[in-house]
Amino acid sequence: MYLAKLYVTHKPSILDPQGEAIKNALHNLKFQNVSSITQGKYFEMKLDNDNKKDAEQIVKDACKELLVNQNMETYHYDIKEV
Amino acid sequence: MYLAKLYVTHKPSILDPQGEAIKNALHNLKFQNVSSITQGKYFEMKLDNDNKKDAEQIVKDACKELLVNQNMETYHYDIKEV
Repeated sequence: MYLAKLYVTHKPSILDPQGEAIKNALHNLKFQNVSSITQGKYFEMKLDNDNKKDAEQIVKDACKELLVNQNMETYHYDIKEV
Repeated sequence: MYLAKLYVTHKPSILDPQGEAIKNALHNLKFQNVSSITQGKYFEMKLDNDNKKDAEQIVKDACKELLVNQNMETYHYDIKEV
Protein backbone atom coordinates (compact mmCIF):
# COMPACT_ATOMS: atom_id res chain seq x y z
CA MET A 1 0.00 0.00 0.00
CA TYR A 2 1.25 3.48 -0.88
CA LEU A 3 0.42 6.92 0.45
CA ALA A 4 0.59 9.77 -2.05
CA LYS A 5 0.63 13.37 -0.91
CA LEU A 6 -0.44 15.62 -3.71
CA TYR A 7 -0.06 19.40 -3.86
CA VAL A 8 -2.06 21.35 -6.44
CA THR A 9 -1.18 25.01 -6.96
CA HIS A 10 -2.08 27.77 -9.40
CA LYS A 11 0.30 28.23 -12.27
CA PRO A 12 2.41 31.29 -11.48
CA SER A 13 1.21 33.03 -14.63
CA ILE A 14 -2.44 32.86 -13.48
CA LEU A 15 -3.85 35.79 -11.51
CA ASP A 16 -4.52 34.68 -7.93
CA PRO A 17 -7.28 36.88 -6.43
CA GLN A 18 -7.81 34.39 -3.58
CA GLY A 19 -4.20 34.73 -2.46
CA GLU A 20 -4.46 38.52 -2.62
CA ALA A 21 -7.63 38.44 -0.51
CA ILE A 22 -5.97 36.25 2.12
CA LYS A 23 -2.90 38.50 2.14
CA ASN A 24 -5.05 41.57 2.70
CA ALA A 25 -6.92 39.84 5.51
CA LEU A 26 -3.61 38.88 7.16
CA HIS A 27 -2.31 42.45 6.81
CA ASN A 28 -5.49 43.77 8.43
CA LEU A 29 -4.84 41.37 11.31
CA LYS A 30 -1.37 42.97 11.74
CA PHE A 31 0.57 40.17 10.01
CA GLN A 32 2.44 42.71 7.88
CA ASN A 33 5.41 40.37 7.51
CA VAL A 34 3.51 38.04 5.20
CA SER A 35 4.75 39.26 1.83
CA SER A 36 2.84 36.73 -0.25
CA ILE A 37 0.52 33.80 0.20
CA THR A 38 -1.12 31.39 -2.21
CA GLN A 39 -3.77 28.80 -1.48
CA GLY A 40 -3.80 25.48 -3.21
CA LYS A 41 -5.23 22.03 -2.65
CA TYR A 42 -3.68 19.18 -0.74
CA PHE A 43 -4.74 15.55 -1.22
CA GLU A 44 -3.74 12.47 0.73
CA MET A 45 -4.47 9.37 -1.30
CA LYS A 46 -4.05 5.75 -0.21
CA LEU A 47 -3.42 3.25 -2.97
CA ASP A 48 -3.80 -0.53 -2.84
CA ASN A 49 -0.78 -1.29 -4.97
CA ASP A 50 2.29 -3.41 -4.39
CA ASN A 51 4.28 -1.69 -7.05
CA LYS A 52 5.44 1.92 -6.73
CA LYS A 53 5.49 2.50 -10.46
CA ASP A 54 1.83 1.46 -10.82
CA ALA A 55 0.83 3.61 -7.85
CA GLU A 56 2.58 6.63 -9.36
CA GLN A 57 0.84 6.05 -12.67
CA ILE A 58 -2.55 6.06 -10.91
CA VAL A 59 -1.70 9.32 -9.16
CA LYS A 60 -0.72 10.95 -12.45
CA ASP A 61 -3.79 9.66 -14.27
CA ALA A 62 -6.14 10.72 -11.44
CA CYS A 63 -4.63 14.22 -11.55
CA LYS A 64 -5.04 14.42 -15.28
CA GLU A 65 -8.58 13.01 -15.40
CA LEU A 66 -10.14 14.50 -12.28
CA LEU A 67 -8.16 16.34 -9.65
CA VAL A 68 -6.18 18.98 -11.54
CA ASN A 69 -7.35 21.62 -13.98
CA GLN A 70 -4.28 21.54 -16.16
CA ASN A 71 -5.16 24.83 -17.82
CA MET A 72 -4.74 26.79 -14.60
CA GLU A 73 -3.08 24.49 -12.11
CA THR A 74 0.10 22.55 -11.68
CA TYR A 75 0.88 19.76 -9.21
CA HIS A 76 3.61 17.80 -7.55
CA TYR A 77 3.47 14.78 -5.29
CA ASP A 78 5.39 12.62 -2.85
CA ILE A 79 4.70 8.91 -2.67
CA LYS A 80 5.86 6.40 -0.10
CA GLU A 81 5.09 2.88 0.99
CA VAL A 82 3.00 2.59 4.17
CA MET B 1 13.04 35.69 4.33
CA TYR B 2 11.29 32.43 5.10
CA LEU B 3 8.96 30.22 3.12
CA ALA B 4 6.32 28.33 5.09
CA LYS B 5 4.41 25.45 3.54
CA LEU B 6 1.23 24.86 5.45
CA TYR B 7 -1.03 21.82 5.21
CA VAL B 8 -4.56 22.03 6.62
CA THR B 9 -6.53 18.79 6.91
CA HIS B 10 -9.79 17.66 8.45
CA LYS B 11 -9.51 16.17 11.91
CA PRO B 12 -9.80 12.39 11.49
CA SER B 13 -12.88 12.33 13.75
CA ILE B 14 -14.78 14.67 11.41
CA LEU B 15 -16.93 13.14 8.70
CA ASP B 16 -15.42 13.90 5.29
CA PRO B 17 -18.16 13.85 2.63
CA GLN B 18 -15.90 15.67 0.15
CA GLY B 19 -13.31 12.90 0.35
CA GLU B 20 -16.02 10.27 -0.13
CA ALA B 21 -17.34 12.10 -3.18
CA ILE B 22 -13.87 12.29 -4.73
CA LYS B 23 -13.27 8.62 -3.98
CA ASN B 24 -16.54 7.66 -5.68
CA ALA B 25 -15.66 9.77 -8.69
CA LEU B 26 -12.25 8.09 -8.93
CA HIS B 27 -13.82 4.63 -8.64
CA ASN B 28 -16.24 5.51 -11.44
CA LEU B 29 -13.23 6.47 -13.55
CA LYS B 30 -11.78 2.96 -12.95
CA PHE B 31 -9.27 4.01 -10.30
CA GLN B 32 -10.42 1.20 -7.99
CA ASN B 33 -7.04 1.07 -6.28
CA VAL B 34 -7.61 4.35 -4.49
CA SER B 35 -8.77 3.10 -1.09
CA SER B 36 -9.14 6.52 0.51
CA ILE B 37 -8.62 10.15 -0.33
CA THR B 38 -8.98 13.35 1.65
CA GLN B 39 -8.81 16.90 0.39
CA GLY B 40 -7.27 19.64 2.46
CA LYS B 41 -5.77 23.06 1.89
CA TYR B 42 -2.21 23.93 1.06
CA PHE B 43 -0.73 27.38 1.63
CA GLU B 44 2.64 28.76 0.61
CA MET B 45 3.45 31.81 2.66
CA LYS B 46 6.48 34.09 2.30
CA LEU B 47 7.56 35.91 5.43
CA ASP B 48 9.83 38.96 5.68
CA ASN B 49 11.60 37.86 8.84
CA ASP B 50 15.24 37.37 9.66
CA ASN B 51 14.50 35.13 12.59
CA LYS B 52 13.05 31.65 12.21
CA LYS B 53 11.39 31.70 15.61
CA ASP B 54 9.50 34.92 14.80
CA ALA B 55 8.48 33.56 11.40
CA GLU B 56 7.14 30.37 12.99
CA GLN B 57 5.15 32.38 15.51
CA ILE B 58 3.53 34.36 12.69
CA VAL B 59 2.59 31.13 10.91
CA LYS B 60 1.02 29.73 14.08
CA ASP B 61 -0.85 32.95 14.87
CA ALA B 62 -2.11 33.30 11.28
CA CYS B 63 -3.43 29.72 11.42
CA LYS B 64 -5.15 30.36 14.71
CA GLU B 65 -6.64 33.72 13.77
CA LEU B 66 -7.56 33.20 10.12
CA LEU B 67 -6.51 30.18 8.13
CA VAL B 68 -7.56 27.18 10.21
CA ASN B 69 -10.94 26.31 11.71
CA GLN B 70 -9.59 24.67 14.82
CA ASN B 71 -12.92 23.02 15.58
CA MET B 72 -12.77 20.84 12.49
CA GLU B 73 -9.28 21.13 11.08
CA THR B 74 -5.72 20.45 12.06
CA TYR B 75 -2.52 21.69 10.43
CA HIS B 76 1.17 21.14 10.13
CA TYR B 77 3.86 23.17 8.40
CA ASP B 78 7.42 23.18 7.13
CA ILE B 79 9.43 26.35 7.22
CA LYS B 80 12.76 27.13 5.60
CA GLU B 81 14.93 30.11 4.82
CA VAL B 82 14.85 31.27 1.18
